[in-house]
Amino acid sequence: MFLTIGELINSTRDEVKQALKEKDEELIRKLAREQAEAGADVIDLNAGESMEDEKDDMDWLIDLVEDEVDDVRICVDTPDPEVLEFGLEKVENRPVINSISNEEDKAKAREVASEYDADIIGLAMGEEGMPETVEDRLNETEALVKKCEKLGIDTDNLYMDVIAMTIGSNQEQGQYVIDSVREIKENFDVKTNIGLSNMSFGLPDRGLINRTVFAMLLEAGLDAALIDPTDKPMMDTLKAAEALLGEDQNCLNYLKYKRSG
Amino acid sequence: MFLTIGELINSTRDEVKQALKEKDEELIRKLAREQAEAGADVIDLNAGESMEDEKDDMDWLIDLVEDEVDDVRICVDTPDPEVLEFGLEKVENRPVINSISNEEDKAKAREVASEYDADIIGLAMGEEGMPETVEDRLNETEALVKKCEKLGIDTDNLYMDVIAMTIGSNQEQGQYVIDSVREIKENFDVKTNIGLSNMSFGLPDRGLINRTVFAMLLEAGLDAALIDPTDKPMMDTLKAAEALLGEDQNCLNYLKYKRSG
Repeated sequence: MFLTIGELINSTRDEVKQALKEKDEELIRKLAREQAEAGADVIDLNAGESMEDEKDDMDWLIDLVEDEVDDVRICVDTPDPEVLEFGLEKVENRPVINSISNEEDKAKAREVASEYDADIIGLAMGEEGMPETVEDRLNETEALVKKCEKLGIDTDNLYMDVIAMTIGSNQEQGQYVIDSVREIKENFDVKTNIGLSNMSFGLPDRGLINRTVFAMLLEAGLDAALIDPTDKPMMDTLKAAEALLGEDQNCLNYLKYKRSG
Repeated sequence: MFLTIGELINSTRDEVKQALKEKDEELIRKLAREQAEAGADVIDLNAGESMEDEKDDMDWLIDLVEDEVDDVRICVDTPDPEVLEFGLEKVENRPVINSISNEEDKAKAREVASEYDADIIGLAMGEEGMPETVEDRLNETEALVKKCEKLGIDTDNLYMDVIAMTIGSNQEQGQYVIDSVREIKENFDVKTNIGLSNMSFGLPDRGLINRTVFAMLLEAGLDAALIDPTDKPMMDTLKAAEALLGEDQNCLNYLKYKRSG
């Protein structure tokens, strides 16, 4: 089943940064509720911009979101392994980790990830920085799978993030991420993920670019994505794609979705 | 370059059938103009419902559409080889033929097609009727390619139509048509086409289903489609897909399209 990860509670977004500063419960509750109602399976929580207060803010976010939404799965989104461990220890349901990679300074995060039963987003990047080609992404996947196996991580839980980059500055990145999803799934026993909105950075009508490549990625076998689930045309695309790809028996979910809204 | 074939001047549509009966020039001119302005490369003309008047009506349609739209390419859409030959003889610019197939009663149409310089839509079907699986479509392609080669038709001009069927009654048809486009292009030196709207027959929000599978088909390598080019979200999908698939240098067409509309 496809994993929709709601991306809106992220401290790099101005309204969330402000809400963390002012402890604005209502804004956070609203973002959690709206994303869950729109169909998010997981809600990403990122308080990275809070700097030294990141752990306290993550604590506050988890309490709020778990109180507001029933049976929510939380994605602990942090560069700090201590905050990661704190979050994984605290959350009620099986969490998602965002993220590990082959980077040296992610060694502690990889270790923490190995100690919890979680789905894990693994970025297809390492010391050389962002990947360029499909081959780069396959190499990073191979390296990360090896590191995970060494740590005893079940790679069934690993969602390789193919690293979206804007087609606005590099026209090849669209086909690269699509082919990466297809080839990672052909060559490794892992799942795939993408932070979709980066695809359209700098272009007009970003939603159109995002949902068009989303359809293509779903056909290629994408298993999860960080998206804004309150973007209705985006969720429309997901529901239509599931019906088209034979993942929605007799189109019943599609019919229900269309009737409800 | 992708070939957008405007499907609206078709006598199976009530308003067109009526316009043919009443010789309503304005309706036909409007449909031709709107489709061309929306980006159709080719305008399909079908007067099949006029029965014994089909040839006269095709004559009238071609005159009107060529008068209304500059430099239009016309798709002569008829089951009658005599009307086909008449249309191919009459049109000013290089035409498209809709359609030939492996069916026995298409023998004369295949022969006519071989005598003109035209793009040719070849339906992936024969005596057994509509295809079911990807294999059926590949077999029909192989058979039609052989027939075309025997007649001296350059298969570079052959657009194999993968035969869209609604996912409303068969959930596998979505993946089947996508895989058919991919495999036909891998295995034969031909192009591909689809009559897109059949995919969504009987389902709500047909446009959503159509444009979602359109994105997937374009990624698979689709070369042409019969669509309603005045359906703006559909043309949006085409422009976004061309930018995403590296077929729009620096996204300049996308930027121009978005600025103009």
